[in-house]
Amino acid sequence: MRGTVLYGPHDVRFEDREDPRIEKPTDAIIRIAATCVCGSDLWPYRGIQKIAQPTPMGHEYCGVVADVGSAVKTVKPGQFVIGSFCISDNTCPSCRNGYQSGCQNLEFMSRAQAPMLRVPLADGTLVATHEMPSDQLIPSLLAVSDVFGTGWFAADAANVKPGATAVVVGDGAVGLLGVLSAKLMGAERVIAMSRHEKRQKLAKEFGATDIVTERGDEGIARIKELTNGIGADSVLECVGTEESMMQAIQSTRPGGSIGYVGVPHGMKLDVWPVFFNLVHLHGGPAPVRRYLPDLIKLVWDRKAEPGKVFDLVLPLEEVAEGHRAMDERRAIKTLLRP
Amino acid sequence: MRGTVLYGPHDVRFEDREDPRIEKPTDAIIRIAATCVCGSDLWPYRGIQKIAQPTPMGHEYCGVVADVGSAVKTVKPGQFVIGSFCISDNTCPSCRNGYQSGCQNLEFMSRAQAPMLRVPLADGTLVATHEMPSDQLIPSLLAVSDVFGTGWFAADAANVKPGATAVVVGDGAVGLLGVLSAKLMGAERVIAMSRHEKRQKLAKEFGATDIVTERGDEGIARIKELTNGIGADSVLECVGTEESMMQAIQSTRPGGSIGYVGVPHGMKLDVWPVFFNLVHLHGGPAPVRRYLPDLIKLVWDRKAEPGKVFDLVLPLEEVAEGHRAMDERRAIKTLLRP
Repeated sequence: MRGTVLYGPHDVRFEDREDPRIEKPTDAIIRIAATCVCGSDLWPYRGIQKIAQPTPMGHEYCGVVADVGSAVKTVKPGQFVIGSFCISDNTCPSCRNGYQSGCQNLEFMSRAQAPMLRVPLADGTLVATHEMPSDQLIPSLLAVSDVFGTGWFAADAANVKPGATAVVVGDGAVGLLGVLSAKLMGAERVIAMSRHEKRQKLAKEFGATDIVTERGDEGIARIKELTNGIGADSVLECVGTEESMMQAIQSTRPGGSIGYVGVPHGMKLDVWPVFFNLVHLHGGPAPVRRYLPDLIKLVWDRKAEPGKVFDLVLPLEEVAEGHRAMDERRAIKTLLRP
Repeated sequence: MRGTVLYGPHDVRFEDREDPRIEKPTDAIIRIAATCVCGSDLWPYRGIQKIAQPTPMGHEYCGVVADVGSAVKTVKPGQFVIGSFCISDNTCPSCRNGYQSGCQNLEFMSRAQAPMLRVPLADGTLVATHEMPSDQLIPSLLAVSDVFGTGWFAADAANVKPGATAVVVGDGAVGLLGVLSAKLMGAERVIAMSRHEKRQKLAKEFGATDIVTERGDEGIARIKELTNGIGADSVLECVGTEESMMQAIQSTRPGGSIGYVGVPHGMKLDVWPVFFNLVHLHGGPAPVRRYLPDLIKLVWDRKAEPGKVFDLVLPLEEVAEGHRAMDERRAIKTLLRP
């Protein structure tokens, strides 16, 4: 088969790779129905996160099980499955606490931008749908694998409750699905911070009640104005920079919560304002496996259409253009079809 | 009257001051029954926190109301009262959310190391006992004003639940009362990190089940050993340095919670391990006013004796020696009697 490999900054190749095969009895092989490019792929793509050698890419995936190892019990060939970008055993103490992204046997998926994929710890990582989905559902089911699961975790970590006011910092695909998640969790007011018309429009489709275009001190003043003078109950930080984190901290009311899911590359946080603003801070790689059954059901029942974030669909072999379009912010998120 | 003023590093003076008087209709004047020296007083005492001019000291207090302004409704002359170190109106949106330490009219108390004290926003800051306490209860009632309230907040912010395992980083008075708080909240296992024999002993009296003397990587390894290999559910960070915060982060299980109450002077936190360890972080100046009624009741009913942290009692005029003894770690905490 051919698969996606990053060789260095802006150098994505779709090239011959060995076909994946069962290596351990707990593995499954799946035939990819759809995969995509993640905002986090742009860190190594832009050279900000260094790579030591050519690196297979892709960690969002769904598809049909082709083969399973002898120890796999919960999925079988022919089933349609969605998996988390975090590989977990789903049995260790951390998994039982609902933190599969902190599993004692954690691995991060890669190699998913390919037609076939080996999934280790298949029982602990994959969830099967009860029947074969229609083609129209595929983008939204794919989104559950990471981008929706991560937006959902941002809202959950930000402790969004019915009636709450939520602010979303970041208008990438995760931020937009943070808006959708906050809305689905019952937030009465969802304030999206965005200056990008197309993204503002999608934020509103997902349930944003207000758009704030200002940033920095002006953005904070605008949020205060909208929130009783004290800041929001819940703030979703979906970028991962010091600037966006400070925006989040200053936008949260005393005792409010920040859910942060942008990978904080090199972020050094001045704890003083976190302390005196009395905010709750929680985040990390999303424990998507915990949410998979519920999010699949939301999609299946047409209560959520997170697949709307895919505004560019390309054949898998055009994966390099898929990265470029996102890097240049021409696309919110690229879906790839083998 | 005479009161305490810090002139510079290690220069505490007990000198003539104007008698406090009602300045606003919301003020009360109280005759101090007992006050004390706080660990946070040592920051300016040691010159780490600069002071711009001679600064009146003291923010922990209890005593008898001598006079009230015309707008004060909930306390009256002759009543025994305990107040928070944070002055709050207890009516603004943040106060109603239980975060009186984030009050829109917040002030921090000072000037309490004196025989008489003006308390602004008396209705929102003070709570009266239902009758005059016995002398023996005074140290524990005084402790509620900050040190016990702050230890309690550390445990609450660290989300201590019945059956939980809690770790306490820091064996100062706040840390020791964090041990007591975690125990009272139902923690099954309370691990105190301390190398100081006298403090270890008090930690055990307060309910510590384990003492860990190791620090750094060895300390973390020891905590992991005691906690299912994954870390503790709840960690109370009661110091306020980068080192102690890192100790806390590495001692917490994925999805577990850190309550931090040490003022983070200049702390720059590397967010990477916070993110990948998936911890919850919450802290700040304790909203003691929220806890006052419950903590006063715990003390009154003899269910808690937080006053045990006072291992040195001095006449108020020896306040300079009270600071010295704590600075040199000869005393855990100094109580001062006018």
